[in-house]
Amino acid sequence: MFHHRSFANGLTLIGEVSPSARSVAVGFFVKTGSRDESSDVSGVSHFLEHMVFKGTPRRSAFDVNRDFDRIGAHYNAFTSEENTVFYGAVLPEYLPDAVDILADILRPSLRQEDFDLEKNVIIEEIGMYDDQPMWCAYDQSRKAFFADHPLGNTVLGSVESIKALSREQMQGYFDRRYVAPNITVSVAGNFDWNQAVELLEKHCGAWPTGVAPRSNLRPASHREGVKIVPKDKVIQEQVMVLTPAPGADSPLRYAADILAMIVGDDTGSRLYWELIDPGMADSADMSYHDYEGAGAFFTMLSCEPENTATNLDALREIYREIQANGATAEELNTAKNKVLSRIVRGSERPMGRMQALGMGWTYHQKYRSVDEELAAFDAVTIADLRRVLDEFPLHNLNVLALGPLTKLASD
Amino acid sequence: MFHHRSFANGLTLIGEVSPSARSVAVGFFVKTGSRDESSDVSGVSHFLEHMVFKGTPRRSAFDVNRDFDRIGAHYNAFTSEENTVFYGAVLPEYLPDAVDILADILRPSLRQEDFDLEKNVIIEEIGMYDDQPMWCAYDQSRKAFFADHPLGNTVLGSVESIKALSREQMQGYFDRRYVAPNITVSVAGNFDWNQAVELLEKHCGAWPTGVAPRSNLRPASHREGVKIVPKDKVIQEQVMVLTPAPGADSPLRYAADILAMIVGDDTGSRLYWELIDPGMADSADMSYHDYEGAGAFFTMLSCEPENTATNLDALREIYREIQANGATAEELNTAKNKVLSRIVRGSERPMGRMQALGMGWTYHQKYRSVDEELAAFDAVTIADLRRVLDEFPLHNLNVLALGPLTKLASD
Repeated sequence: MFHHRSFANGLTLIGEVSPSARSVAVGFFVKTGSRDESSDVSGVSHFLEHMVFKGTPRRSAFDVNRDFDRIGAHYNAFTSEENTVFYGAVLPEYLPDAVDILADILRPSLRQEDFDLEKNVIIEEIGMYDDQPMWCAYDQSRKAFFADHPLGNTVLGSVESIKALSREQMQGYFDRRYVAPNITVSVAGNFDWNQAVELLEKHCGAWPTGVAPRSNLRPASHREGVKIVPKDKVIQEQVMVLTPAPGADSPLRYAADILAMIVGDDTGSRLYWELIDPGMADSADMSYHDYEGAGAFFTMLSCEPENTATNLDALREIYREIQANGATAEELNTAKNKVLSRIVRGSERPMGRMQALGMGWTYHQKYRSVDEELAAFDAVTIADLRRVLDEFPLHNLNVLALGPLTKLASD
Repeated sequence: MFHHRSFANGLTLIGEVSPSARSVAVGFFVKTGSRDESSDVSGVSHFLEHMVFKGTPRRSAFDVNRDFDRIGAHYNAFTSEENTVFYGAVLPEYLPDAVDILADILRPSLRQEDFDLEKNVIIEEIGMYDDQPMWCAYDQSRKAFFADHPLGNTVLGSVESIKALSREQMQGYFDRRYVAPNITVSVAGNFDWNQAVELLEKHCGAWPTGVAPRSNLRPASHREGVKIVPKDKVIQEQVMVLTPAPGADSPLRYAADILAMIVGDDTGSRLYWELIDPGMADSADMSYHDYEGAGAFFTMLSCEPENTATNLDALREIYREIQANGATAEELNTAKNKVLSRIVRGSERPMGRMQALGMGWTYHQKYRSVDEELAAFDAVTIADLRRVLDEFPLHNLNVLALGPLTKLASD
């Protein structure tokens, strides 16, 4: 059963009540991320996500942790290019406490002392990610592909941008972006809708309103090319191949998801049979990423450096083949069964439903039941896949290879 | 709704029907693992788990993968010290196919050619795990703690034992261990019990019967000590601290689980506040492992080498303190909320219920509903924690440190 409420200050509350569930999940979706950052505050969204757990006028960082713990909450947060999300799942009787804590921490004190300490944690985290070749390749490939479009912005920021960031800049960003109309609260599982409305009214009704437009919705100007990033102390070559794909607002997004699964699901796909099964690569998968107003197919490949050129040739051939001849009915059927199975399994937990609801509302201002979501995927035809290929051909690849190689054999 | 059926050949089928679920999960629990291996076949259980996916008289390895894929199955397998488990989750209409495939692959061809090829995969996997310091420390700490008890056996085997293994030895092990009375099939989610009985009767009714006793149920003779394993190219020191704990058959197992959570849950525990929050260690957690007839508390610590001795002292002090004074009522309450929340959230997916049911039956030949499981944890008292500490004191630690250190400062 779906419910929806807009509060006077512009905060949105959505909820799906499932009486058969045994827990309840609640998430605060702030529509802000690295694409909303100017270069002088690069990384502020993610740094701010950390600061949210550092305390409020009512709670120290210790209290935040202890209070979540006392109610046995499973809680976390993440920051992406477009969203910053704070969430928790608890037993139904603890929903009031969970909302109390989450709503409280979303008005953080941003104390100078905590800010200075946490800065070191962020810089360490940047260093840690820098040691992960797959992450580096992913981050740099977005930059190479999206070029100067804000979707190419790094989520973590750089050591330099974080060092230079001031508490006042973060406070300014918070005041502009964490206004009530830019936040959607999603609740799913076993709970009472009226109680949820009362809780949110009580804890968030006084949050300031405001306007937080996303001003950079121009389409991404996709860039073709091959970039080699030599990196020491890395054994395998990490290759990212990006091409344009439908945006989150496109009706073709379901077909795009299925196409990516046919080409590059981590089992049983064309990439799997061509590269993984015969042991040519350690991993090779294609996935569809949709953003507001733009999208991309990401193919990620990890292999021995000496196999890189051959594997890239094989990948180009797979792209060429499906571009020319499309997918088969059997492939479409298998991909549908996989995606339906994933949606259904993901929806069985309040945590999964809460996230699907929150993301759906953030991008589409629309509710879709599990059955509607299943029906949308089930309706995809061979002709729809053809339409995706025609509008977003798998040509003009943007390739980024990070690892031991200094050049590709075929260059 | 719980159901149970024993077939004529000794195979057991258990099932929990949840009409509100949208998928169904099925698992085959073979009660065999590294503890059931003699040293000349060390690693055969895990190697055999791989071979199960390599084909049958009816299916090639390709067919196995494709057939799972066609029905959108989320499937996998794992091998531990005591169990080898094969499982999958699908949409309800595909249960017959899932049972067909799983039952078929559990009578594998074990072809010589596949055996020879897969041997290389296993040897590569051993090499890969050997590159993971945390895994090495875990594996070697069990050996150090359990000494010559079969629970100290390594799951993967060694490069030598795998190289020396013959197809005939594996066939012999399979014939002895994969007999119907040694296998429990667990089904949970949205399905029809009578249909499940028919499917299992049809596909497994002709499986050979036999007796597969676990002959080595003597208690583990716990060994105290400190062992330093110097390892190159590793940055952090990995420390394992083991002490005895109740076995899976002990009524104290619920209290033992809660005690481990109070001392070393990954958030909000004593170890967390003492070592993680102040940044002394990257990770520090304690968990309770129960086996048939034996158990152990595992504390895992990862930190800068120079902090190892200080951290171990802090750990000893935490152990000493709780041993002397027990846990507080607030700690008990928090731990209960966490464990209840985890059980409930885990039970919301058929996959989680299927695994809990299968493991519960394998160890206790008994069904417990989620509510019964919750009640058992909820009934734990401060006095029960005291009983665990008295019977299994946190003294006489078995410490294993793997990493850059060649000796501990305090030695």
